[in-house]
Amino acid sequence: MQNFSFHNPTRIIFGKGTLPKLGAEAAKAGKKALLVYGGGSIKKNGVYDAVLLSLKKSGVAVIEHPGVKPNPVLSHTREGVRKVLQNDCDLIVAAGGGSVIDEAKAIAAGARHSGDVWDFFCGKAAIKDALPLFTVLTLPATGSEMNAGCVVTNEKAAEKFSAHGAALFPRVSILDPETTMSLPRAQVANGAVDSLAHLIESYFTTSDRDVQVTDEVVHALARSVVEATGRILKDPADYNARASMMWSATLALNGLASCGYGGTSFPNHVIEHSLSALYDIAHGAGLAIVMPAWFKRHLETAGPERLAKFGAAVFGAKSAEGAITAFEEFFRKAGAPVRLSEAGIPAADIPRIADNAMGLITLWGMKLTKSEVEEILQKAK
Amino acid sequence: MQNFSFHNPTRIIFGKGTLPKLGAEAAKAGKKALLVYGGGSIKKNGVYDAVLLSLKKSGVAVIEHPGVKPNPVLSHTREGVRKVLQNDCDLIVAAGGGSVIDEAKAIAAGARHSGDVWDFFCGKAAIKDALPLFTVLTLPATGSEMNAGCVVTNEKAAEKFSAHGAALFPRVSILDPETTMSLPRAQVANGAVDSLAHLIESYFTTSDRDVQVTDEVVHALARSVVEATGRILKDPADYNARASMMWSATLALNGLASCGYGGTSFPNHVIEHSLSALYDIAHGAGLAIVMPAWFKRHLETAGPERLAKFGAAVFGAKSAEGAITAFEEFFRKAGAPVRLSEAGIPAADIPRIADNAMGLITLWGMKLTKSEVEEILQKAK
Repeated sequence: MQNFSFHNPTRIIFGKGTLPKLGAEAAKAGKKALLVYGGGSIKKNGVYDAVLLSLKKSGVAVIEHPGVKPNPVLSHTREGVRKVLQNDCDLIVAAGGGSVIDEAKAIAAGARHSGDVWDFFCGKAAIKDALPLFTVLTLPATGSEMNAGCVVTNEKAAEKFSAHGAALFPRVSILDPETTMSLPRAQVANGAVDSLAHLIESYFTTSDRDVQVTDEVVHALARSVVEATGRILKDPADYNARASMMWSATLALNGLASCGYGGTSFPNHVIEHSLSALYDIAHGAGLAIVMPAWFKRHLETAGPERLAKFGAAVFGAKSAEGAITAFEEFFRKAGAPVRLSEAGIPAADIPRIADNAMGLITLWGMKLTKSEVEEILQKAK
Repeated sequence: MQNFSFHNPTRIIFGKGTLPKLGAEAAKAGKKALLVYGGGSIKKNGVYDAVLLSLKKSGVAVIEHPGVKPNPVLSHTREGVRKVLQNDCDLIVAAGGGSVIDEAKAIAAGARHSGDVWDFFCGKAAIKDALPLFTVLTLPATGSEMNAGCVVTNEKAAEKFSAHGAALFPRVSILDPETTMSLPRAQVANGAVDSLAHLIESYFTTSDRDVQVTDEVVHALARSVVEATGRILKDPADYNARASMMWSATLALNGLASCGYGGTSFPNHVIEHSLSALYDIAHGAGLAIVMPAWFKRHLETAGPERLAKFGAAVFGAKSAEGAITAFEEFFRKAGAPVRLSEAGIPAADIPRIADNAMGLITLWGMKLTKSEVEEILQKAK
């Protein structure tokens, strides 16, 4: 078990009917908020009205910043920074899924930075300060509501990069599972895949395989995601399954599921980022394509031990190969694509995708060559 | 799944060789520390020297408060408060196990309170402020290093009561598993029992049995405690088992293992508090006696469902009765007593113990009558 630090100061307010608590929390941080949201689903499910009402009641004025894309883009992020500066906002409220929260984080840091916000993503500057951020989560998937990272796509350069800094932890995140009841099936699938992806990266890339407590925590959360997804697909109105899914997704990337692992990296995410950057497909869908292929190569290069352990604990699989099949079956059942072809991405594009992936791999100093990325993608044809 | 809030701001620094990081962290909070510790084991295992050296290097002066008892007592706590006030200490450093940290918390709150520190324990005052607290944990058991509660015994009244308040969260807790390598076997057992006790109370008393994610987390941590204990008993120098045990014990009572449960209470702890208050036995030993008896009554009154689920997931037990047997076997194997007689407590004392327990039961408004407590204790003869 390797040394680690753990510090997660985000306050979670979880459950039915908790949205009205937003205003009083936000008011502790100031009088004027930039309200960041996406394509308008929050106007259909009542979240938008509840957020505005709660902020108004607590005397927090709102400047709106709608239109965040599913893979949030740099131009829109820069626009958010400009709005904050022009209107002298004291805080940010993000209402939506991980993309909305990620862009809100980037805006929060960008507004306290003298240079361009992309500096944080391309390694030119470190995040040292950010406006206080409050989130209302409506899509369990990315864990962004309780961590200090964010991902933004520089659409001109086709670079989907991430930035990190303790200042990005949301002050308060409100998680009401009822807001997820109306999610389209594809988003349920994407959330489940993304949560599992967060759980597997450190588990499979760790150089230290004797970290029993964290292995147990990872298995527990993965089992919970798998069971909750099954229940939600059967009955979308199953509140307890929605709630279990929502909290599992948060815990999957709040730091807990990697404590004590060593030398970890995020190869599946890095390759997926290129799929999203080049084809604008959903992060979860891209991960469902990359993961089985990556596992196949992991089995060849690292042996069956981890796959067999994870597979047995989470899916009841009998072997490492069985674990890969179980992943694929779970993704398919959830409705996610598991091959490039199923997402309409031609195999001829593999060199181009690998080329794109090398941007992030080089930036992060990861030990992964272009030909290895191609080899993985060949298994995803 | 019931509504909940989760907020745990303690920063954990975990691993080998991390003690030298204490000074720089403590120095952020002031120039003079009250150093709280116990009977001197930290002078034998090098922790005392490392703590003093680190504080000195960072310019933090130290006033010593040694002699905390395994069940920390009110008179000694009051003495600590007096020392803080007389010496104008800015912060508290606790180096030891849960008892040391608990007394340090009480001192931290007592020093910022105009009345007597016992006010917080008997319900006369709420904790609103406390001196900043830094801990160096040397005994995995109570979870006090990452939560906001503390237990102190009023030795004149024979009352072992607890106090809670967000101000009690340690700022930073340093967990070096190597400091636990020299623990006597009895303390390993007590720590394992205590950690399991923390995991079972909410799990078995919840009114909401459809909280899948938290059930999974509880099972995961319990399995980790059981496996780590077995490894430590076999090989006390097994670092990874020590580390797994230490982090499991912290997570067992940092709030995570009860998220979403409803109507929970701590009946095993309440009854055990009377054993410790009246006979000064170790908390873990008392719990090992109470738990099997409480489970037997739980089986009669609440049915086999939870016991069977927990037993299957953690011990591979085939039935609810098998789960109780597995608990007893685990406690015995670890070296803990599982009957009152094994701790030298006569059955004739049962009414007196139940009488004592009613103090806390009444204070907390728990639904447990004196005759029910006696009924449980009769099963522990």
